[in-house]
Amino acid sequence: MSTATANAIRFLSMDMVQKANSGHPGAPMGMADMADILWREFLQHNPTNPHFANRDRFVLSNGHASALLYSVLHLSGYNLSIDDLKNFRQLHSKTPGHPEYGYTDGVETTTGPLGQGIANAVGMALAEKLLAEEFNQDGLNIVDHHTYVFLGDGCLMEGISHEAASLAGTLGLGKLIVLYDDNNISIDGKVDGWFTENIPERFSSYGWHVIANIDGHNPEAIRAAICAAKEEQSKPSIICCKTLIGKGAANKEGSHKVHGSPLGDEEITATRAHLGWEHEPFVIPQEIYQQWDAKTKGMALEQKWNDTFAQYQTKYPEKAAEFLRRLAGKLPENFDAHIQAALNDIVAKAEKIATRKASQNSIEILAQVLPELVGGSADLTPSNLTNWSNSVSVLPQQGGNYVHYGVREFAMSAIINGMTLHGGVRPFGATFLMFSEYARNALRMASLMKINPVFVFTHDSIGLGEDGPTHQPIEQIATLRMIPNMAVWRPCDTAESLIAWSEAIKARQTPSCLIFSRQNLPFITRDEQQLANIRRGGYVLRASKAAKAVLIATGSEVELALNAQKVLAEQGIDVNVVSMPSTNIFDQQDAAYQQSVLPENLPRIAIEAGTTSGWYKYVGLNGKVIGLDRFGESAPANLLFKEFGFTTENVVATVKQLIIS
Amino acid sequence: MSTATANAIRFLSMDMVQKANSGHPGAPMGMADMADILWREFLQHNPTNPHFANRDRFVLSNGHASALLYSVLHLSGYNLSIDDLKNFRQLHSKTPGHPEYGYTDGVETTTGPLGQGIANAVGMALAEKLLAEEFNQDGLNIVDHHTYVFLGDGCLMEGISHEAASLAGTLGLGKLIVLYDDNNISIDGKVDGWFTENIPERFSSYGWHVIANIDGHNPEAIRAAICAAKEEQSKPSIICCKTLIGKGAANKEGSHKVHGSPLGDEEITATRAHLGWEHEPFVIPQEIYQQWDAKTKGMALEQKWNDTFAQYQTKYPEKAAEFLRRLAGKLPENFDAHIQAALNDIVAKAEKIATRKASQNSIEILAQVLPELVGGSADLTPSNLTNWSNSVSVLPQQGGNYVHYGVREFAMSAIINGMTLHGGVRPFGATFLMFSEYARNALRMASLMKINPVFVFTHDSIGLGEDGPTHQPIEQIATLRMIPNMAVWRPCDTAESLIAWSEAIKARQTPSCLIFSRQNLPFITRDEQQLANIRRGGYVLRASKAAKAVLIATGSEVELALNAQKVLAEQGIDVNVVSMPSTNIFDQQDAAYQQSVLPENLPRIAIEAGTTSGWYKYVGLNGKVIGLDRFGESAPANLLFKEFGFTTENVVATVKQLIIS
Repeated sequence: MSTATANAIRFLSMDMVQKANSGHPGAPMGMADMADILWREFLQHNPTNPHFANRDRFVLSNGHASALLYSVLHLSGYNLSIDDLKNFRQLHSKTPGHPEYGYTDGVETTTGPLGQGIANAVGMALAEKLLAEEFNQDGLNIVDHHTYVFLGDGCLMEGISHEAASLAGTLGLGKLIVLYDDNNISIDGKVDGWFTENIPERFSSYGWHVIANIDGHNPEAIRAAICAAKEEQSKPSIICCKTLIGKGAANKEGSHKVHGSPLGDEEITATRAHLGWEHEPFVIPQEIYQQWDAKTKGMALEQKWNDTFAQYQTKYPEKAAEFLRRLAGKLPENFDAHIQAALNDIVAKAEKIATRKASQNSIEILAQVLPELVGGSADLTPSNLTNWSNSVSVLPQQGGNYVHYGVREFAMSAIINGMTLHGGVRPFGATFLMFSEYARNALRMASLMKINPVFVFTHDSIGLGEDGPTHQPIEQIATLRMIPNMAVWRPCDTAESLIAWSEAIKARQTPSCLIFSRQNLPFITRDEQQLANIRRGGYVLRASKAAKAVLIATGSEVELALNAQKVLAEQGIDVNVVSMPSTNIFDQQDAAYQQSVLPENLPRIAIEAGTTSGWYKYVGLNGKVIGLDRFGESAPANLLFKEFGFTTENVVATVKQLIIS
Repeated sequence: MSTATANAIRFLSMDMVQKANSGHPGAPMGMADMADILWREFLQHNPTNPHFANRDRFVLSNGHASALLYSVLHLSGYNLSIDDLKNFRQLHSKTPGHPEYGYTDGVETTTGPLGQGIANAVGMALAEKLLAEEFNQDGLNIVDHHTYVFLGDGCLMEGISHEAASLAGTLGLGKLIVLYDDNNISIDGKVDGWFTENIPERFSSYGWHVIANIDGHNPEAIRAAICAAKEEQSKPSIICCKTLIGKGAANKEGSHKVHGSPLGDEEITATRAHLGWEHEPFVIPQEIYQQWDAKTKGMALEQKWNDTFAQYQTKYPEKAAEFLRRLAGKLPENFDAHIQAALNDIVAKAEKIATRKASQNSIEILAQVLPELVGGSADLTPSNLTNWSNSVSVLPQQGGNYVHYGVREFAMSAIINGMTLHGGVRPFGATFLMFSEYARNALRMASLMKINPVFVFTHDSIGLGEDGPTHQPIEQIATLRMIPNMAVWRPCDTAESLIAWSEAIKARQTPSCLIFSRQNLPFITRDEQQLANIRRGGYVLRASKAAKAVLIATGSEVELALNAQKVLAEQGIDVNVVSMPSTNIFDQQDAAYQQSVLPENLPRIAIEAGTTSGWYKYVGLNGKVIGLDRFGESAPANLLFKEFGFTTENVVATVKQLIIS
């Protein structure tokens, strides 16, 4: 029953994997008929402009089926040549092993780590919903597209798929359409021994529109199901497609042998005969290209949208300008001035408050000029302090700019990634720092994709007190700093908190983790230059020409360093104090600046209420780190700081020991 | 309708939170009636011996309700006094903010990070099932107990609850009984805006026995539901109990105001009047203690089991001895000799194989003497190489010793923790190193609980090649090393792989991460002393009296260090080579040994195909690290190592630069 247009996907995928001698041919072959119908008949996109604002989004959540995506991108007319396909999985090619955002036109998100693609897609559909509610006027629907997802058993086994699907059901994301590749095979074999969920019932329990029991190799059935899914606009839809992995393969169809290795020349030859495919490897006849070509249709689609947008511009010039600014990811022109004015206020106020409260004040300031801000928390709003005076909860029947993600840290983070990828909004989401661990791989994916969401983490150390070691971060700050391309900020007061927030918002290709205290921290006085240097990640807070050592501290420990510095000065020992809110950003400064902050000839003592090992990079074998390489305890915070040596006396003694020895 | 015995839990919980001025009174009050019935009428345990082998397990998955657990432990007769309750959330008390395993008799696992408790419980129920199938004979059921769980909305929102419940349904864990505290409130308020799942339908989709719509304040209804749950032995049961948070509070009942803060003296006084409770804070009348006291019943229960076990010992002396050895967590007496003999074989063979294959060979060796081994993988068995010749898959209708966890890394890890806590089995589970991130907080919980599961991670670097940066670990090894009390091993060959495995198995209070390569690695020749020193975590592999520097390497980079050493020697530059399979274990060695491996006067170069920052602890500011602080790429592995500077030439050049400068 399989069509030539679907078989084009099958053979390109087989050929790619065979040539690379690496990859996954089975899933692309199994999903070829689904892709054939969806891409050729339904997907609203423009291959000649992959950034067309109102395109449908397509997410291949089972990213190991990348050969399928590359095949359809090539066939439908994206800038991806046969030579690119021949370079599948080769160094610096446009066709890496898993689809990677930024490498290949038409790849909307990086997938491979299972379950995150569907959560990204929920974020895209949510962004679409929020933007549509904000911008569409009088039938001029400048935001109006679907988000389509392919996923397999693996994605559905991952917990994040549950979190994301549950929230999508609650929020009624009706333009989200998932096609489930139900092939009953995973890497360990037939899934009957470990995956026996009733998927229709499961998705029904989330409030989804379920289209069950579709033959994923029957074009008519697939077509009818997608039509039905598009008609149901109040609920997300899942289309459960029964498929055979490796469908079409002469002998290996339906077996896990086609999952992760090439079919081999012999099987491909047999398959060629079996499917009546008479073309050489990587050769697609012109008539098939013609049936696939989406360029003309895509350009017409974009032109139609351009016409609509032109009318919109005429009727709503301000909204149109705002829409374009948002899509371009540009900040408002007054942004820097606004922040500077707010910083002046903050300095004048000199408040002693928790940095989580300083964060909330910063959000309030940002929200005044950034209507694109979409906040949220994984059910810790009153603790994270992430809402603001004009934030409006996004609820099932109501748009807004604040998402109650529920206790779903991983989905929250991947949804935020999806919203960021969609564009038009600047999302952030919050939880306790400890539970960054539940979400960790989504933070990494943001870094890998070079996108700029903001992750807010409060309750940043033993300073959270009585909740005890299950909730007290020790190694979390250090481990977040290790993610390549992640900016991690741990501010010490209201001024550093605002700068951290504004730098996170200004970042274009870097996600940020903003880390805040539960407990109050004093305001630190600074001169203009020091204030300006906060954004360099590390700077001298107190200096003396006679300094014999440098104390480096972050967050709540800056106060401790300053106290120790005073006591030492009274004893005739001068030390410098460096505040280092972001080691990642400090590492990017030029050598001269770094040298000015950490002079080579001075021994160094780093102080941070967390694991020590990352700090040796700054203090070396001859310095000291005052930190915590064990788990915390449940007790009031002040007792814990004392218990674990975060006292002025201990810092003073450590400095003396170091400079005398 | 609430009973005095249930109200005893309510007032103790209120009093504890009030005295500590910190904690969560609402959930304990809401679940008091459920706890009252379960603990007094159903739970089979012995407060005078909290380690009674065949006790029912109770897991408080919503660990913030710790005051409830401490109350019932106190009331039923565990070694937990009123003074202990008065010390709630204070430093070094037996009543920390969240229940912590090892701190308090009767606390079966540490909970607080939501969703992990239910997964631990699945592990306990699975261990019970496997041990029962292995040991029970002729009606002498020496393993025969239930695992009970309390959980709330938060746990059910977390993805891990989906993963764990789905697998529990598939495996038909009929002695697992969950009581769901359905109070419709989470920290952000009423859950209607973010949590609208149909829980009965969801659990039905997993194949559970669902008892819906129980009034969680009606003792009769709770009793009948638990009876029904016990009767259904082929499926796990969930009892959905509608409750009011803070049930009984005079004015705040049903409001999120009772969730995370004390009720206040005024409200407690009003509640005293409201419930007709005439006793002072922390005072429980004797008649209520008598109704709660489970000591006599518990001792009789244990005596009955002792009698059964005595019969079992007579009929099956070998099995009985084996059972006792397993429960005690003791290794067989021939363990060390067996490993030494296997090591001799390995040295004689000198195979060049991937360390993941060396790991599989090690498992094969261990399985010969450790019938308690229960392996598994998160659907990557053919890649992780974690099965062995006599492993038998655990399937719905079949016991065994190898669990197909499905693509559920987080649940797998927390289930393994639960099996370890249950005792009698030594579980391990595997996935790709990258997906340690999905499971990370469960690894931390194992470390925090001081238990000894083994986590196997393969595909440990860019060496996995074409799958690309989504699957190539960069920062993962370094971040795992930062978990306090975690032993991380990255062996370089077959010998180090066996030692890593045997050290992980011998550890009593430390979990281990064993990290293996996808690609082949050569066997390294060593003398006896070097072989013996592997277990010290770091040791000198090649030494020269004229050494001018020390190369430190791990895993696949040891070969590179040795190659560089040879080239340098040819050029007249002697260097030592140190293999450092476990920095964590090396850090625990005495100073003299550390000094012998890393002499103070020699500059050091660390080589590892991952993030550099952790290595400055060993090389200081004057050393060098050859590593990777960026994401990888999709390409064949050999090209990637070259691309990123893991070449003999680069190491040689770096050494020269260092010793000349």
